[in-house]
Amino acid sequence: MPSPVPMTAAPPPQSWTHLKENYQHIRQGSLDLTHTMCVEDQIIQSMPDVSPTKWHLGHTTWFFERLILKSFASGYEDFDPNFDYLFNSYYYTIGQMHFRPNRGLLSRPTLADVHAYRAFVDAAMVTLLDQYSGDAVGEIADKLIIGLQHEQQHQELMLTDIKHVLAQNPFFPALFTAPPRPSEDEDGSILDWLRFEGGLVSLGYDADEDGPFAYDNEGPAHKTWLDPFYLASRPVTNGDYRRFIEDGGYADVRLWLSDGWAKITAENWTHPLYWVREEGQWFEFGLDGLQPLNPDAPVSHLSYYEAQAFAHWADRMWPGVRLPREAEWEYAARQAAQHAGDRAENQAQHGNLLDIQRLKQDGIAPTPRPAVAAETADSAKRQSLCGNVWCWTQSAYSPYPGFRPLEGPLGEYNGKFMSGQLVLKGGSCYTPRDHNRLSYRNFFPPDARWQMTGLRLARDL
Amino acid sequence: MPSPVPMTAAPPPQSWTHLKENYQHIRQGSLDLTHTMCVEDQIIQSMPDVSPTKWHLGHTTWFFERLILKSFASGYEDFDPNFDYLFNSYYYTIGQMHFRPNRGLLSRPTLADVHAYRAFVDAAMVTLLDQYSGDAVGEIADKLIIGLQHEQQHQELMLTDIKHVLAQNPFFPALFTAPPRPSEDEDGSILDWLRFEGGLVSLGYDADEDGPFAYDNEGPAHKTWLDPFYLASRPVTNGDYRRFIEDGGYADVRLWLSDGWAKITAENWTHPLYWVREEGQWFEFGLDGLQPLNPDAPVSHLSYYEAQAFAHWADRMWPGVRLPREAEWEYAARQAAQHAGDRAENQAQHGNLLDIQRLKQDGIAPTPRPAVAAETADSAKRQSLCGNVWCWTQSAYSPYPGFRPLEGPLGEYNGKFMSGQLVLKGGSCYTPRDHNRLSYRNFFPPDARWQMTGLRLARDL
Amino acid sequence: MPSPVPMTAAPPPQSWTHLKENYQHIRQGSLDLTHTMCVEDQIIQSMPDVSPTKWHLGHTTWFFERLILKSFASGYEDFDPNFDYLFNSYYYTIGQMHFRPNRGLLSRPTLADVHAYRAFVDAAMVTLLDQYSGDAVGEIADKLIIGLQHEQQHQELMLTDIKHVLAQNPFFPALFTAPPRPSEDEDGSILDWLRFEGGLVSLGYDADEDGPFAYDNEGPAHKTWLDPFYLASRPVTNGDYRRFIEDGGYADVRLWLSDGWAKITAENWTHPLYWVREEGQWFEFGLDGLQPLNPDAPVSHLSYYEAQAFAHWADRMWPGVRLPREAEWEYAARQAAQHAGDRAENQAQHGNLLDIQRLKQDGIAPTPRPAVAAETADSAKRQSLCGNVWCWTQSAYSPYPGFRPLEGPLGEYNGKFMSGQLVLKGGSCYTPRDHNRLSYRNFFPPDARWQMTGLRLARDL
Amino acid sequence: MPSPVPMTAAPPPQSWTHLKENYQHIRQGSLDLTHTMCVEDQIIQSMPDVSPTKWHLGHTTWFFERLILKSFASGYEDFDPNFDYLFNSYYYTIGQMHFRPNRGLLSRPTLADVHAYRAFVDAAMVTLLDQYSGDAVGEIADKLIIGLQHEQQHQELMLTDIKHVLAQNPFFPALFTAPPRPSEDEDGSILDWLRFEGGLVSLGYDADEDGPFAYDNEGPAHKTWLDPFYLASRPVTNGDYRRFIEDGGYADVRLWLSDGWAKITAENWTHPLYWVREEGQWFEFGLDGLQPLNPDAPVSHLSYYEAQAFAHWADRMWPGVRLPREAEWEYAARQAAQHAGDRAENQAQHGNLLDIQRLKQDGIAPTPRPAVAAETADSAKRQSLCGNVWCWTQSAYSPYPGFRPLEGPLGEYNGKFMSGQLVLKGGSCYTPRDHNRLSYRNFFPPDARWQMTGLRLARDL
Repeated sequence: MPSPVPMTAAPPPQSWTHLKENYQHIRQGSLDLTHTMCVEDQIIQSMPDVSPTKWHLGHTTWFFERLILKSFASGYEDFDPNFDYLFNSYYYTIGQMHFRPNRGLLSRPTLADVHAYRAFVDAAMVTLLDQYSGDAVGEIADKLIIGLQHEQQHQELMLTDIKHVLAQNPFFPALFTAPPRPSEDEDGSILDWLRFEGGLVSLGYDADEDGPFAYDNEGPAHKTWLDPFYLASRPVTNGDYRRFIEDGGYADVRLWLSDGWAKITAENWTHPLYWVREEGQWFEFGLDGLQPLNPDAPVSHLSYYEAQAFAHWADRMWPGVRLPREAEWEYAARQAAQHAGDRAENQAQHGNLLDIQRLKQDGIAPTPRPAVAAETADSAKRQSLCGNVWCWTQSAYSPYPGFRPLEGPLGEYNGKFMSGQLVLKGGSCYTPRDHNRLSYRNFFPPDARWQMTGLRLARDL
Repeated sequence: MPSPVPMTAAPPPQSWTHLKENYQHIRQGSLDLTHTMCVEDQIIQSMPDVSPTKWHLGHTTWFFERLILKSFASGYEDFDPNFDYLFNSYYYTIGQMHFRPNRGLLSRPTLADVHAYRAFVDAAMVTLLDQYSGDAVGEIADKLIIGLQHEQQHQELMLTDIKHVLAQNPFFPALFTAPPRPSEDEDGSILDWLRFEGGLVSLGYDADEDGPFAYDNEGPAHKTWLDPFYLASRPVTNGDYRRFIEDGGYADVRLWLSDGWAKITAENWTHPLYWVREEGQWFEFGLDGLQPLNPDAPVSHLSYYEAQAFAHWADRMWPGVRLPREAEWEYAARQAAQHAGDRAENQAQHGNLLDIQRLKQDGIAPTPRPAVAAETADSAKRQSLCGNVWCWTQSAYSPYPGFRPLEGPLGEYNGKFMSGQLVLKGGSCYTPRDHNRLSYRNFFPPDARWQMTGLRLARDL
Repeated sequence: MPSPVPMTAAPPPQSWTHLKENYQHIRQGSLDLTHTMCVEDQIIQSMPDVSPTKWHLGHTTWFFERLILKSFASGYEDFDPNFDYLFNSYYYTIGQMHFRPNRGLLSRPTLADVHAYRAFVDAAMVTLLDQYSGDAVGEIADKLIIGLQHEQQHQELMLTDIKHVLAQNPFFPALFTAPPRPSEDEDGSILDWLRFEGGLVSLGYDADEDGPFAYDNEGPAHKTWLDPFYLASRPVTNGDYRRFIEDGGYADVRLWLSDGWAKITAENWTHPLYWVREEGQWFEFGLDGLQPLNPDAPVSHLSYYEAQAFAHWADRMWPGVRLPREAEWEYAARQAAQHAGDRAENQAQHGNLLDIQRLKQDGIAPTPRPAVAAETADSAKRQSLCGNVWCWTQSAYSPYPGFRPLEGPLGEYNGKFMSGQLVLKGGSCYTPRDHNRLSYRNFFPPDARWQMTGLRLARDL
Repeated sequence: MPSPVPMTAAPPPQSWTHLKENYQHIRQGSLDLTHTMCVEDQIIQSMPDVSPTKWHLGHTTWFFERLILKSFASGYEDFDPNFDYLFNSYYYTIGQMHFRPNRGLLSRPTLADVHAYRAFVDAAMVTLLDQYSGDAVGEIADKLIIGLQHEQQHQELMLTDIKHVLAQNPFFPALFTAPPRPSEDEDGSILDWLRFEGGLVSLGYDADEDGPFAYDNEGPAHKTWLDPFYLASRPVTNGDYRRFIEDGGYADVRLWLSDGWAKITAENWTHPLYWVREEGQWFEFGLDGLQPLNPDAPVSHLSYYEAQAFAHWADRMWPGVRLPREAEWEYAARQAAQHAGDRAENQAQHGNLLDIQRLKQDGIAPTPRPAVAAETADSAKRQSLCGNVWCWTQSAYSPYPGFRPLEGPLGEYNGKFMSGQLVLKGGSCYTPRDHNRLSYRNFFPPDARWQMTGLRLARDL
């Protein structure tokens, strides 16, 4: 009978000093992301799935207070005892919580209060790291690392959520400047089909390749069988997707899953979430406001239904085309990493992932970027599959064989969401660059599209 | 065939100087009401009927810009052309508007932007009043007066709306301090039945009694017949209503209108909106936070359904008891005013109405206050019926005979709401004291209870 | 202090024999109405407001069993004890009941069971009437008369409800044959304005004019003041209403009450309930299936919102035009009855009301018929206002001064619906001809339109 | 690149005579199932997922008319051209269809009309089979076989749907008599854990084992890897599940998937769909009406959420316990079939599946039956896994590797439902006995529980 897979693969691999630096660096990153937001931006909840920035800032702080300070910092007293109720997200083993859809109804604590809360907890954390002399060093380090991974997840959510908030405003406010645009070129790079042989392969977290940390849902590693398959050399672009729209894709019931058709009909969807049609031209809303659509950039903010319908439509061009399976994607990504002769850590940086420090310096909005065409099929297979947009797979978010949730609150982190969602792989331009890894399993329901989601096609032989 | 009743009964009765002073005084009052609110308080919309404070501040400003400055201030340019869309409430004759339930989804313009907008418009208004030399003096004065009446209406809404916003917070924030409480005394003042003779009476706006201004829906004055009736000498109190609850009022289907029963069942209502039960004691949430229930104060934040069920229940004590008709209330109130030998202007001040200047000075939350028992039936009939709580009547909010809506946008002010609502009379402790008059017809749907609403009983002979 | 108004104005005015004949006649009428329906027609509930025919047949029977047989027929045993639960409509004082929107989910009891139930109860009722020798003769007669009035109300509902059921079928089944159509004539009869003087008039049930029975809500009779007014000489026709549609009436927000606009927008209403547009022509669904629209017949199946918007639109032609008040309609109708030198009993028959016996014989669908133009204004004022379509008034369905609900279950008959509804007057071609009277107050919410509802215009002088 | 897998694996293996007999036999079976239903039973749709019996009878007939007669019976004319619209279920490639949730709003065609439709189509089909001399013999046979498989699917739905319809009736009508009950014995049979070794196994349709027909979604057969695992020797019983309830299972948030908790909270679920608590005892509603709960019978009418929560709860007793994967179930079932030395055809009959002919003869309600304890572990592994209740697996209903939907309408049969649903295996006591096979993939959303669904536990080593 298997044991739960712990979230760190090894005894704390980092010195306390290094941990403290990491802590301070990542915590500062969250504040840096709010650099160009006014107070009002940080209060609003535009739909139940979205949380106000203020809440993200408070919740990530509470995570450290609740899981570390209250257990290990002797004499620690809550900054505010009400925060246990307000900033618990979904940990029922800890206690009751504020109703999620009502996070935007709270004016108090104010943003300034939450900033003070962050400073208070950060000071206590640094003191703990400086002074702790007990024998729970390993446990503290484990939880600290989890807390930082958790904070990085919320950094991505802060960007997707504020984007959704600002998108409600009919006058398209921008937080950052637009990146320089290349001249418009409809063709984009050529889409090649890269062949992979498969066989009996291993799927799931491998500390050697993926680094010292993984969430419990990324393991245990296990065998799975793959038939040979093709994977596209680049993601589907805005230009590709525009052709699908122009070809009547949203009106052709035969292309859609039954639930997908019901959704687009009920919601009257006729394009990706942030596309805007004005005077015959397509624009896209982003953190840089409303900008002309870049046809060569990967298409983003698609639901699974739309990704699947696009693949179904593309079957006319490439018979047998479909969305990749999770195992196919991960297997191909690991091949690329090995071909490139790199460790996963480097691998994770190859794609267009989020660099918060650079963002703060240059103020250029993170945005999916066009792929660079590889010169040969061989070099194409060495290109990273990561970054730009999360890639929808056709694989349900189910437990890996042998998965057991952890005991205690962290057991609620991932396992209880294993129904009705699909796995996405690869990180996006909103994912902090040192947060991604090849075993990472992101997951969303098939109708979610406020995340930075897109697709890369696969194909049967 | 009747003409629409204009909103001012006479050529502008006030000098320009006086108008300008009034303008500055009332406009300042709106800002004064936000004195103790943080930015975050002013952004949130807790339900579709509630507007954020920021929106109230912008909308009332837009009213002057749109109806006066754009027509009469030569060379006036919009502060921001988007505001016509964002701050129009429901005037379709002016143009499209932002969807009302989404007012809380707008972080921009910021509160500081709205303050700047107010200052900009106020300066232009003062300039106009100082310099105008055209021949539309009368029309400007008319619209100015309407704009100020409109602003005062929104001052009341600012208080009821922020109260609802803060009530969503499980930790009961307060904007003001609590008034001193008398010692608890269950009995309250004795309820007497004051007899009125009725007959063929006049209902509706009378400039002599009600002052120079009225909304179009308050006229034309017209005859109506009243049988003799009784009116209670004081409103129903919290203590009275607590007895109704303790007697199982919310569980006894026979007491309720059919729609009322459906509502309280669906929403699980078992007490007035802001009552809170903690450890066997009743508390009430107000602008002073959570306070012990005052049994002698008028009960407030009742729906019409609850007012009607209470009256039905009280029929056991006083057979024939019921809610008053609009004409009965107004007739009795006019009798009281005449008995008191006062003009309506003074009359309006007798009750517990809102004094913004005093509120800003002493910071004591406006709250319904216990009635002072009259010494004789005669003196009871001279007591004002105004203030404390808006009194639900059993009269539908229908057009008076001969009513015609005004031409243009102001025709949308009142007339289009004449279905499904009931008339309330008398003003409340949230109504600016110089905004009330005896002909005033407030109106809300029968399930509304976020307003400062209560009841006074009537009775058939 | 007033007492409740009993539902019969006088000691039972009819001999037992006459009562028994009436009982048998009316009870048979309900079955006659189902003459052309298959079993399947009688089972379906097409929306919560609609009841299956089977339920109407059972409920009206239960009314006699529960209110008369169980109290006065010695030794009577329930046909089926479950029926008290299944066939109680809304009498909480009697007990719990089956959830109204789920009436169409009951296959058992079968229709045959319900027919057996009717026969069983009818036999017991006849036996009671033949043999009763106790001293509750008056009470039995009272309740019998109420039960028969109640049955007649449900006869009208049976027609409106089966019409709604069949209208869900995309292939337009018919229960009856179409009446012969006159040649199409767009003009219809001329609309004249009949002037009435008003003054201090009496409103409400008058046994001399209205006959021996009235519901409690029709009294007490009371004084009310009416200014002089005009009433149109005929109802609004399909042709009139078609012009409103063609003029863009459903797209012009200025014509609509605020709630009305919200309704037609949410439901996408662009024409009366049963109008169907096919190949550029208007048709109307009725009990005779789909038929070409008759422009001269009164328009029917309008909500209050549509009636009000039409009147608002017509103000361009006739300034001051509006819907009549209840008191105006009733006053004018009584004038017509007196001018005609008739008693109310005859009056009620003048209009196009329902004759069940004739329907069974000739099988011609009851349908609103074009008005016959009066030769003079004087003769116009003698024409009955009754029949064809229920006329929406602008008067809320409120209690008359002095109204008190009856004790016991019959107190739930009318009083608890006195919120959110409007009064309709005059009966329709679906109302049994001996069921109508001038004091009758029908009532529906402003968005209801599955009833045979239309309008007649009034106008201020 | 793969081709779609045809639904029949071999040239029609049956003579035309045999096909015709099968046709007549299965078609008669559908009518036999309605033997004890009244007309009223067959009209009602109790929720959107449920179809009226009348609709099932019409739709299955339309399937033959549309796919065979209209293409291959020369000179065939529609029984009624409207039926193409009314009886199309979800085949958009064929045309528009009646809105599914409104199937219960159609009184016409009557049940008698549908019976006539069946007779008409059956006669035409027999004529075709008797007289056809063209060269589409193979295609006709293929579609005929699909049509019969389709009819058998609807036979199961007819039972689950009528059960749901009758369950809406508060008085629990029965269609059949109850089977004899064994004496109540809380212990049930011992639950043993049967060990399976797994490895690289084949999953999906195998004509040798599964017979000549399979739906497209059962193929292509493909390799998959299985770690060793345990499977329980019997399904979870009512007694087991009652202990889960008594232990507070429905109130313990930690046991539930997040979506499951949201569902049971919103719907207030506290027991399986058809359990009824009366006076401290559990009863279960079935086609035999309300009967005392049989603790030894397999629990049924569970959602996936409830099945999963039960497994989570049982982890306390058996660490590592969980729901089986589809591949595990199928692998174990094939092992049992081989151990038993049987072909799949016989295998399918071993469990408690539906025998329509016997049901018509003895009138005993099909019901899950207690397992018979095997004498040895070895004999336990030879017991069929089929029948009684469909077994929820934890596997999403996804396409098998290489799956492609068929061209034309049959391509809509299965593929478009491949999102948001889970696979169930094994057939139930409502599944026609010759309709089941080991490769069969039934699928429902995780909150569905009106089907005959239960669970069998698996366990990690």
